[in-house]
Amino acid sequence: MEWLQLKLIVDAGDVEIIANVFDDLESGGVQISDDPQYDSEIKKGQVAVSAFLTADRNQSEMVAQLHRRLSQLEAASLLQQTPRLLTREVSESNWTTTWRDYYQPIQLTRFLTVVPKGTVYEPTSTAERLIALEPGKSFGTGMHPTTQLAVSMLELTMHGQETVFDVGTGSGILSIAATFLGAQKVVATELDSVALEFTQHNFELNQITNQVELVQGSLLDQVSQKADLILANMLPEALVPLLPQLATHLFPDGQVIMTGIIQAQAAKMRGLIESAGFTIDLVLQSSDWVCYRFKQHAEA
Amino acid sequence: MEWLQLKLIVDAGDVEIIANVFDDLESGGVQISDDPQYDSEIKKGQVAVSAFLTADRNQSEMVAQLHRRLSQLEAASLLQQTPRLLTREVSESNWTTTWRDYYQPIQLTRFLTVVPKGTVYEPTSTAERLIALEPGKSFGTGMHPTTQLAVSMLELTMHGQETVFDVGTGSGILSIAATFLGAQKVVATELDSVALEFTQHNFELNQITNQVELVQGSLLDQVSQKADLILANMLPEALVPLLPQLATHLFPDGQVIMTGIIQAQAAKMRGLIESAGFTIDLVLQSSDWVCYRFKQHAEA
Repeated sequence: MEWLQLKLIVDAGDVEIIANVFDDLESGGVQISDDPQYDSEIKKGQVAVSAFLTADRNQSEMVAQLHRRLSQLEAASLLQQTPRLLTREVSESNWTTTWRDYYQPIQLTRFLTVVPKGTVYEPTSTAERLIALEPGKSFGTGMHPTTQLAVSMLELTMHGQETVFDVGTGSGILSIAATFLGAQKVVATELDSVALEFTQHNFELNQITNQVELVQGSLLDQVSQKADLILANMLPEALVPLLPQLATHLFPDGQVIMTGIIQAQAAKMRGLIESAGFTIDLVLQSSDWVCYRFKQHAEA
Repeated sequence: MEWLQLKLIVDAGDVEIIANVFDDLESGGVQISDDPQYDSEIKKGQVAVSAFLTADRNQSEMVAQLHRRLSQLEAASLLQQTPRLLTREVSESNWTTTWRDYYQPIQLTRFLTVVPKGTVYEPTSTAERLIALEPGKSFGTGMHPTTQLAVSMLELTMHGQETVFDVGTGSGILSIAATFLGAQKVVATELDSVALEFTQHNFELNQITNQVELVQGSLLDQVSQKADLILANMLPEALVPLLPQLATHLFPDGQVIMTGIIQAQAAKMRGLIESAGFTIDLVLQSSDWVCYRFKQHAEA
């Protein structure tokens, strides 16, 4: 049985559109790497987007489908750079090793370290909380810079006892982080039913099922409560329709943490956030990614 | 006995030059406020810069001197906006109350709260460390946005056991924060001998004199060791000459946190940092202020 790794080397500005292509392939999650230090195949300004196809999928048909989509995007001049596709077969017996190349324990902050299930990690202090994650199943494994930005922003923002909404939770990593940082209650939403299953699994792995409510639905459509803090680490296509939902879901002093925003789109996103009635009060930026924290205008 | 409060309402872009004017007056420290929410006399894009003159100074001569300097700057078209000067006499008996208007306990992060001596504060959790500061004596009392940015960046960066240099320490607040965040050793430098005395006093207030070495000198001129982390919260005029000193004072994986940079000068400062051989890896921005974290290029 062979898995197939599909790895696209793309321009940093094309990441979102490429992630969408993989989404449509239902490849079950992508890994994004944008640091040449960790991936010798990319240069500065490039990003590697990888997906893994299980052996039960019709791999050659999916690769053909991927090529067709990329050709269409290129023909429509929607890409800044022609993506380079690298494929690699991974045998079942090497599978664990392959994942290990991708998944290593990552210290997100002084207090939160992601430890993929199956990897060994010795905490460096008693204050450190370990986030266990089932590797390779879903978005948001801590490898992506926006996850790191979101967790850093959470650490700078939370004081404990907050009600937190985590919109489009994916792996659930931000809900787990918020719980470990003292949230009284977390409501996590996720549309995709396959992702939901793994989210639930990750909540169980971290023994936080009592504190986290997992809701299937798009954005905040299925949530009627109010929050002290709303988190969203998603592509701008999902962040934009979320903006008009925020005000009715926030307590008066509530805050929003939004990331998944690439530098090239940051100014546009800032404009949309401000037009929606919010004031950005803290910006965290790493590599090509931006995380905004904002609250409602004082007069609202 | 009367103190005199001098408060200049200036354009945000003029803050540095105005702070320098107050510096030349030897007013013994300025307070900067740029949030209209806390100061009804400023509008968005404006900053209030306040200094207090003790009764033993020739107050009217100093006010005249201030007017002369401002006229010169205006005549040379060095200011974006004509500063508005507000003066207020403060009697000795109202002094404490006046300071209380300016100094309130401030939660810098979840773990660090500044408590000016003489104010009362009840910690909200056992994890919270209180930074005691003698109010009104020196720069960096936690009121300034750059202090908050620097402390936030420290919290995101430090893991404990670091050797930290705090260049131009002022009140010593960043050295105290670094110590509370687990630094093994802090070396704080300060040129001004009056400031030094208050820095030492604040280190004593916080009982950290054993962990912090206070060195009189400009920038890192008097420091020969190497650090894991170099902190500098200063005006760009001081940050720029510090840049060539950094590489020789950093361990190979060492990091630098630099703030005191106003948004309008951030791009220029970024260019200077990169030209000096560093890579910026995290940016924190609040209001009009920017904090950069950077390290040496991998090839260096």
